[in-house]
Amino acid sequence: MNQKKLNIGLIGCGFMGRTHSNAFRQAGVFFQPEFTPVLKAVCARTADTVENFAAQWGYESTETDWRKLIERDDIDLVDIATPNDSHYEIAIAAAEAGKMVMCEKPLGRSAKESAAMTAAVESAGVANMVWYNYRRIPAVTLAKQIIDEGKLGKIFHYRANFLQDWTIATDLPQGGEALWRLDKDVAGSGVTGDLLAHCIDTAMWLNGGIAEVSGMTETFVKERQHQLTGKVQPVTIDDASIFLARFANGSIGQFEATRYARGHKALYTLEINGEHASLKWDLHDLHRLQMFDHADEGRTRGWRSVHITDGDHPYMDRWWVPGLQIGYEHSFTHQFADFLTGIASDQPLSPSFAEALNTDRVTDAVLASAETRQWKTIGN
Amino acid sequence: MNQKKLNIGLIGCGFMGRTHSNAFRQAGVFFQPEFTPVLKAVCARTADTVENFAAQWGYESTETDWRKLIERDDIDLVDIATPNDSHYEIAIAAAEAGKMVMCEKPLGRSAKESAAMTAAVESAGVANMVWYNYRRIPAVTLAKQIIDEGKLGKIFHYRANFLQDWTIATDLPQGGEALWRLDKDVAGSGVTGDLLAHCIDTAMWLNGGIAEVSGMTETFVKERQHQLTGKVQPVTIDDASIFLARFANGSIGQFEATRYARGHKALYTLEINGEHASLKWDLHDLHRLQMFDHADEGRTRGWRSVHITDGDHPYMDRWWVPGLQIGYEHSFTHQFADFLTGIASDQPLSPSFAEALNTDRVTDAVLASAETRQWKTIGN
Amino acid sequence: MNQKKLNIGLIGCGFMGRTHSNAFRQAGVFFQPEFTPVLKAVCARTADTVENFAAQWGYESTETDWRKLIERDDIDLVDIATPNDSHYEIAIAAAEAGKMVMCEKPLGRSAKESAAMTAAVESAGVANMVWYNYRRIPAVTLAKQIIDEGKLGKIFHYRANFLQDWTIATDLPQGGEALWRLDKDVAGSGVTGDLLAHCIDTAMWLNGGIAEVSGMTETFVKERQHQLTGKVQPVTIDDASIFLARFANGSIGQFEATRYARGHKALYTLEINGEHASLKWDLHDLHRLQMFDHADEGRTRGWRSVHITDGDHPYMDRWWVPGLQIGYEHSFTHQFADFLTGIASDQPLSPSFAEALNTDRVTDAVLASAETRQWKTIGN
Amino acid sequence: MNQKKLNIGLIGCGFMGRTHSNAFRQAGVFFQPEFTPVLKAVCARTADTVENFAAQWGYESTETDWRKLIERDDIDLVDIATPNDSHYEIAIAAAEAGKMVMCEKPLGRSAKESAAMTAAVESAGVANMVWYNYRRIPAVTLAKQIIDEGKLGKIFHYRANFLQDWTIATDLPQGGEALWRLDKDVAGSGVTGDLLAHCIDTAMWLNGGIAEVSGMTETFVKERQHQLTGKVQPVTIDDASIFLARFANGSIGQFEATRYARGHKALYTLEINGEHASLKWDLHDLHRLQMFDHADEGRTRGWRSVHITDGDHPYMDRWWVPGLQIGYEHSFTHQFADFLTGIASDQPLSPSFAEALNTDRVTDAVLASAETRQWKTIGN
Repeated sequence: MNQKKLNIGLIGCGFMGRTHSNAFRQAGVFFQPEFTPVLKAVCARTADTVENFAAQWGYESTETDWRKLIERDDIDLVDIATPNDSHYEIAIAAAEAGKMVMCEKPLGRSAKESAAMTAAVESAGVANMVWYNYRRIPAVTLAKQIIDEGKLGKIFHYRANFLQDWTIATDLPQGGEALWRLDKDVAGSGVTGDLLAHCIDTAMWLNGGIAEVSGMTETFVKERQHQLTGKVQPVTIDDASIFLARFANGSIGQFEATRYARGHKALYTLEINGEHASLKWDLHDLHRLQMFDHADEGRTRGWRSVHITDGDHPYMDRWWVPGLQIGYEHSFTHQFADFLTGIASDQPLSPSFAEALNTDRVTDAVLASAETRQWKTIGN
Repeated sequence: MNQKKLNIGLIGCGFMGRTHSNAFRQAGVFFQPEFTPVLKAVCARTADTVENFAAQWGYESTETDWRKLIERDDIDLVDIATPNDSHYEIAIAAAEAGKMVMCEKPLGRSAKESAAMTAAVESAGVANMVWYNYRRIPAVTLAKQIIDEGKLGKIFHYRANFLQDWTIATDLPQGGEALWRLDKDVAGSGVTGDLLAHCIDTAMWLNGGIAEVSGMTETFVKERQHQLTGKVQPVTIDDASIFLARFANGSIGQFEATRYARGHKALYTLEINGEHASLKWDLHDLHRLQMFDHADEGRTRGWRSVHITDGDHPYMDRWWVPGLQIGYEHSFTHQFADFLTGIASDQPLSPSFAEALNTDRVTDAVLASAETRQWKTIGN
Repeated sequence: MNQKKLNIGLIGCGFMGRTHSNAFRQAGVFFQPEFTPVLKAVCARTADTVENFAAQWGYESTETDWRKLIERDDIDLVDIATPNDSHYEIAIAAAEAGKMVMCEKPLGRSAKESAAMTAAVESAGVANMVWYNYRRIPAVTLAKQIIDEGKLGKIFHYRANFLQDWTIATDLPQGGEALWRLDKDVAGSGVTGDLLAHCIDTAMWLNGGIAEVSGMTETFVKERQHQLTGKVQPVTIDDASIFLARFANGSIGQFEATRYARGHKALYTLEINGEHASLKWDLHDLHRLQMFDHADEGRTRGWRSVHITDGDHPYMDRWWVPGLQIGYEHSFTHQFADFLTGIASDQPLSPSFAEALNTDRVTDAVLASAETRQWKTIGN
Repeated sequence: MNQKKLNIGLIGCGFMGRTHSNAFRQAGVFFQPEFTPVLKAVCARTADTVENFAAQWGYESTETDWRKLIERDDIDLVDIATPNDSHYEIAIAAAEAGKMVMCEKPLGRSAKESAAMTAAVESAGVANMVWYNYRRIPAVTLAKQIIDEGKLGKIFHYRANFLQDWTIATDLPQGGEALWRLDKDVAGSGVTGDLLAHCIDTAMWLNGGIAEVSGMTETFVKERQHQLTGKVQPVTIDDASIFLARFANGSIGQFEATRYARGHKALYTLEINGEHASLKWDLHDLHRLQMFDHADEGRTRGWRSVHITDGDHPYMDRWWVPGLQIGYEHSFTHQFADFLTGIASDQPLSPSFAEALNTDRVTDAVLASAETRQWKTIGN
């Protein structure tokens, strides 16, 4: 039986607090890891909120000050699910306290913050991971396997979009509890850090490093009432962000993220074209991978819609039977199961803080390029 | 150069008169046949109608009595595109006059009529063909090739639907010029002869003979005003027709046709499931063939959407370049090109009157089964 | 806080034991019901099996004799997830012991068994429900709402298929632990009770009672080695089952289930065509509902692919945010959440044993029709 | 009856010569224009080629020197379907001879050539049009109507890709008869002028002028054997071309064209996102328009797949009946029918040379931007 326990302290009770909590619960049951996750404590600023959350999810205790949670001896892993502006301080404090650290993406509000956070976990030598969950959608993981096997040959093109439409209404306020993603001080940026960061993380995982970018951003609604001040204030985030990219392997890419694409709720799409084969995937039908294999016989060659629900598909032997799809939340469960496996076997955890820092270097470059109207090389 | 000419006499200026005329014109250009089709004469009862039609399509002359057209020495091929109730008389007269005969489907209003028509062309020894045009949609022709190559292995299932929705309105009249398909005396039956006949023709072509059927029909709107009498009269056609089938090869089938499937204009779908592979096609995306090949590697096995626009796809070397789709009308052009090739090379013409008679035996059996509520064996 | 507890005793540790257990766990967290589900005991014949299962899923105790479990005072709800041949005995015993009873579908192996089971729960006055889980796929629940609102008008057609391909290999054995679905004594029937039953339950829920049927079955592979006896024995289940139906409301239907449709893993499809609108859904893209609304403006009328992930879609306010799909397992969670709500509010539980009995009457009629080659009226 | 004749002189017998010839023939029949098109003469350099072409398509006479054709009094319209490097000279000569001029796209090899060509037709006052045929795909024309009616509201985003894969093989030669598109001297540029030009023409037609661009090009295969010289020579065209755009109306766009997108034959896709609604279309399913209308009721809002085959869809009243799709070639027929209507009614012809010049200004800017790595403003 699983004797080892991993005590988790979650900070943040919002949308991501929920996805992580579900992952902690489900990974234990479905993946039967060596370490059994224990929902030891949860922290949020408001006592009512955190107590309700703990009752709902089964956390053993609560805190209202994250520093208290980090100080506790009975916490092994600090999981950060707060708005972006507190990632930096919490992660560094947790690392210095010797805790394992998992952090919701983006790592920091800028590569500068992320670099310090990365230095902190590396210097402390603590296990660390960032919740770029889409890598663990089984279809995406399978894409990675196929690419790594060399099936695509030389890569020519990479394309990724992340299209949403929830901020089109001009009377939507900005800032505050639910809408901090529209407040640059809190979020760091708009769609670049929120949505493009996902696209970039997956792209570099699948297709290697990005060498240079030319970006462009737009803020369609220039002013919105701020929830905290009550005043109509300029909107300072990027509503939309597009960029061209050159990858280190010679392939070229185009990326776009927006919250103004009417009709698309969370349409993250990616496509990669190689010499021999191509792959496509999107989040609105996340249980399918599209593949075109030029080696197929000519007359009957076509894009295959692969229903990723079989036992030989990544992670799927843990779930149901062929034909029965899983959903969005499972990507977090898979990531946490891999985290548990990683710490048990002392294998690399990925995406690490260092990898997430690389993503932030690209998002910083995109924003800088958009501002200066110049191509930007990605440094380190 | 093409020295031989084939003089065509078309009877009927409706929808099918138009599709046939286009085929005559286009086959000559795109397939460069040994016999050059000549639009020699067209016939319809009303002088104005037939003269306008001839002017539009380039027919050299007109007739208003089909018997006159058949008598003419300068006509090689009589093409019948009239409502169903005149197919019988015209076809037999044309055969007896020694003309080649092409006939719009269904051949007769019943197997009895069709048997006499078949006997007439066979006894006269004249070239004959029935316009079951869907066999010559390139995707369907490719399906035939794949099945004949044995790629599917033993067949288990066949499914075909033909779904329309244009007669739902209760104030739609029946009978007369445009609506003769709703008049049983003229049409012979409702959707069974009109739509199911297509499904059955393709099914037997792809999957062999049908041994027995259990059918069911329904007339949803019981009375409609008749266009000719002006009176509200009972509707005697079948609005919908469904049947179960056993094929001679041991596979089983389900078929359905209706004009009450809201949202579907002309959705002819077919699917065939074999031991090793399956195929699907539908008329609303007629330029695609769906194929599932179990021999594909397990992880990346999926339904392939094959875009039938390449030079190695049936008929497609005559049209454009890969990726550029053709349409509905081309199926008639292909059929007529094959007719021209067939008569030049003395090869079998298919579907012949004899094949179309077999289809009518099945439609008769479906109607008889629906009426008697018994399974019916298909005789000959 | 949730003070009331509902103690669950699960019988059966197979595939359905897993889906139910997940539902018990997740319903408590995501739906915050008045009754908190407690995984009190689980029962299976083999001690090792049941102990491992209990450890994995968090059951407090185990039994190896289901009668013992039923006798226990600390069990409120008996949940039956065993093969079909023990549903009858367990359900009746549980009802007689005054327990609430949930039973995996089909209820009995025949309407005769199901009638006795229904009488038992009704006579005992205990809460009862059958796991026809597909009603609680949010897209299917939404279809029900739309139909009940009258949006479709008069119904003309209903179509449902359940297509699988996992028994095509002739060397697949029958019977025993994992393959009892191929053993008629255990399962009651083949695909009729296993797959068609789902189609029939949903159909009658959405479109009302079925009046009569004409069915046809086929067993493609006639002999298989039996896992328990080791001998090659005749296969007595139906591998495929198709039927025509007349509904009480005058609409007509076609249904098919098979395990020989190469390329389809668990493709449950349904479509309903009404005077004003039509709906389509399938299990391979379970998070989408297709709708055609004839009231839309003519030029831009088309099938809408509705991504069922919004807060105003059934059950979806409990999960994530728009665009993020859930999966198969959630249908069980929703059903159990509704069960908990139902018993707390004394509202009807559906599908009840009585409703499942009606489904079994139809499956019995389909099988009888196939055997006698006659139409069968559905009695009560 | 149609008494007026329009005598056509076609120059060029390649792929585009075929599409134009088909359009001349079909427009006369299906659109019954006031002017009847007459295939008076066709010209190509090789006598055999041009005679075969004339015989196949029904041209009355042939020329092997385009200057001769232009000099002829019996030619009203000169249609240019030659490789790009002769558009300039022919168009100007034809205009100076007072002929109507239609020219295959792109107009010139550069905006400089196009400006002179435009000046020539405007100075001569002759009817002129450029074959940007995709505007007349009925789904695209319908998109234009919907946008012009204001249905989309303020536009935020425009996206277009044109993806092909036919030049991936490294042993494909460049230049010469069939492969002049790979020869920069003849073509002017690679995919920018060939494919992106289509995307830009449609984009500006639907969404107004483009103000500035940031582009990037790539040549994946650096050397190929040249068909004319037989030598391995550097490839100087752009194999792929991507750019970001700012439209005059404030919306932003991304565009991509490539011949290295494995799996895509001719996948021209476009999408436009507005405040109230969005539209999508692609060339591989050219008979469908996707529309999302935010005004639809929330629960059943979704992307509509509109099957553009009804009588109230643009141009479709001239073809068949609902549900029956047309193909690629029809876009040329529609354009020529509109040309005939335009000259009969003295209405503007579009796209005119002046409009095509604007497109070339954008393609020039894309190439210049790619070379200089700077944003480029579109001048006039």
